[in-house]
Amino acid sequence: MSIYRTTISVEWGDCDPAGIVYYPRYFAWFDQCTLGLFSEAGFALQDMLAEREGFGGLPLVEAKANFMMASRCGDTLDAETELTEIRGSRFTVRHRLSREGRLAVEGYEIRAWTTVDPADRRRLKGAPMPPEVVAALRG
Amino acid sequence: MSIYRTTISVEWGDCDPAGIVYYPRYFAWFDQCTLGLFSEAGFALQDMLAEREGFGGLPLVEAKANFMMASRCGDTLDAETELTEIRGSRFTVRHRLSREGRLAVEGYEIRAWTTVDPADRRRLKGAPMPPEVVAALRG
Amino acid sequence: MSIYRTTISVEWGDCDPAGIVYYPRYFAWFDQCTLGLFSEAGFALQDMLAEREGFGGLPLVEAKANFMMASRCGDTLDAETELTEIRGSRFTVRHRLSREGRLAVEGYEIRAWTTVDPADRRRLKGAPMPPEVVAALRG
Amino acid sequence: MSIYRTTISVEWGDCDPAGIVYYPRYFAWFDQCTLGLFSEAGFALQDMLAEREGFGGLPLVEAKANFMMASRCGDTLDAETELTEIRGSRFTVRHRLSREGRLAVEGYEIRAWTTVDPADRRRLKGAPMPPEVVAALRG
Repeated sequence: MSIYRTTISVEWGDCDPAGIVYYPRYFAWFDQCTLGLFSEAGFALQDMLAEREGFGGLPLVEAKANFMMASRCGDTLDAETELTEIRGSRFTVRHRLSREGRLAVEGYEIRAWTTVDPADRRRLKGAPMPPEVVAALRG
Repeated sequence: MSIYRTTISVEWGDCDPAGIVYYPRYFAWFDQCTLGLFSEAGFALQDMLAEREGFGGLPLVEAKANFMMASRCGDTLDAETELTEIRGSRFTVRHRLSREGRLAVEGYEIRAWTTVDPADRRRLKGAPMPPEVVAALRG
Repeated sequence: MSIYRTTISVEWGDCDPAGIVYYPRYFAWFDQCTLGLFSEAGFALQDMLAEREGFGGLPLVEAKANFMMASRCGDTLDAETELTEIRGSRFTVRHRLSREGRLAVEGYEIRAWTTVDPADRRRLKGAPMPPEVVAALRG
Repeated sequence: MSIYRTTISVEWGDCDPAGIVYYPRYFAWFDQCTLGLFSEAGFALQDMLAEREGFGGLPLVEAKANFMMASRCGDTLDAETELTEIRGSRFTVRHRLSREGRLAVEGYEIRAWTTVDPADRRRLKGAPMPPEVVAALRG
């Protein structure tokens, strides 16, 4: 897979008193898309946490969004998500949400691949993303 | 403690396109109040999960709310929360949210006190709430 | 239509530190299903608010859920939603969420069909659901 | 006022299955802080929408956060929020969330001051922030 695609229905509960999407919801969709990208590549986060020895999760380092067009309850957004960069333990995932072919929101997340300190499972440290994961995400 | 009291500020993001609180938010406040009740009594959920041998959590069995008065961004709600019944492993917590002295929402949660099966930490079973917890919650 | 059916993917962000669905999310899904029922019948809430003269919305009167089985990130829930009762301006919508054929959560919402006071659009009063809406919801 | 300060309690429902704050929640707190800044300055968003002739809201243009330290249920965050830049109709609000004196998350929102097109209330256009609002926000 190179680009993960999904469709998002804007629900009543996603919107604020101005009648448009409450902006933190876009980041929830970014999160959902990043985990969808990993899941479709065969590396679902919840499975890796349960089964992958020493894996610590994919915590956020940075997140950003630009909002070009407001969306409302009943709208449908087409999401495209892609791994665009890997630098040490950090990787960047880009998100583009479009409505009827026009870009509505775009942004990225920078996350870290982490492993747990065996002595203290709450202590995570960055580690390079394993090559089989990179290969699967890049398709 | 017999009644746990707190104050809730209704935020912009709690409200929907009709300009009133999106109703699932009331259940989030119920949850927050129940955990506040336990926390003030010296039994914070996160601490019990980390430190209390064999404790499995406080999963929901049933939840209900009646909505008498809509609230809006900028409103303040006064919450009163109380343990009202214990029956075996199950207990009932009642919630009353008022605005300017008038009852706006009331409801309850029935939860179970649970312990984990040592062989499979995901498997929970009901157990009677320990007497020291009951005593602390009832003040 | 008599029963509205949809599928819900349990996302990472729907779950709490116990690894299971944070229970207010079930009520968000109930809301989504009720509005889905109306929408599929040709009466989308946002369209009625924009276009239906004097319509005031579908505020909640009561909501309840029973939780039989916890669900986790990666699970899929099959939702069935149905109008079960109409009494004056109030109507009841029942929800059943199942996982792999087993009932996980069931509940209901009681809502009111409302019209606005022309003198004060914030003031709503109950009114009988129009017959063409009843007919469409009942299929 | 030059800096708006508030305190955020990290609740159980703010956290994800990794036991740390689900990152979109930070943006909800950013939103809450920006609206708190306006509110304390005497310009609550909901009041301006209701009463300020021609006012269209404060839609987002861009939002970004850097995550330095994860937080958990039971933690308290100290928020500092400040208007840092105005450029035409756009303004930047900076947010810093600290825990026990250490910076945990920082970020900003760029928003637009907008007015409504009288012919179509859904159509917003950017306008310079009125001087009395700027003066009140800058204290």
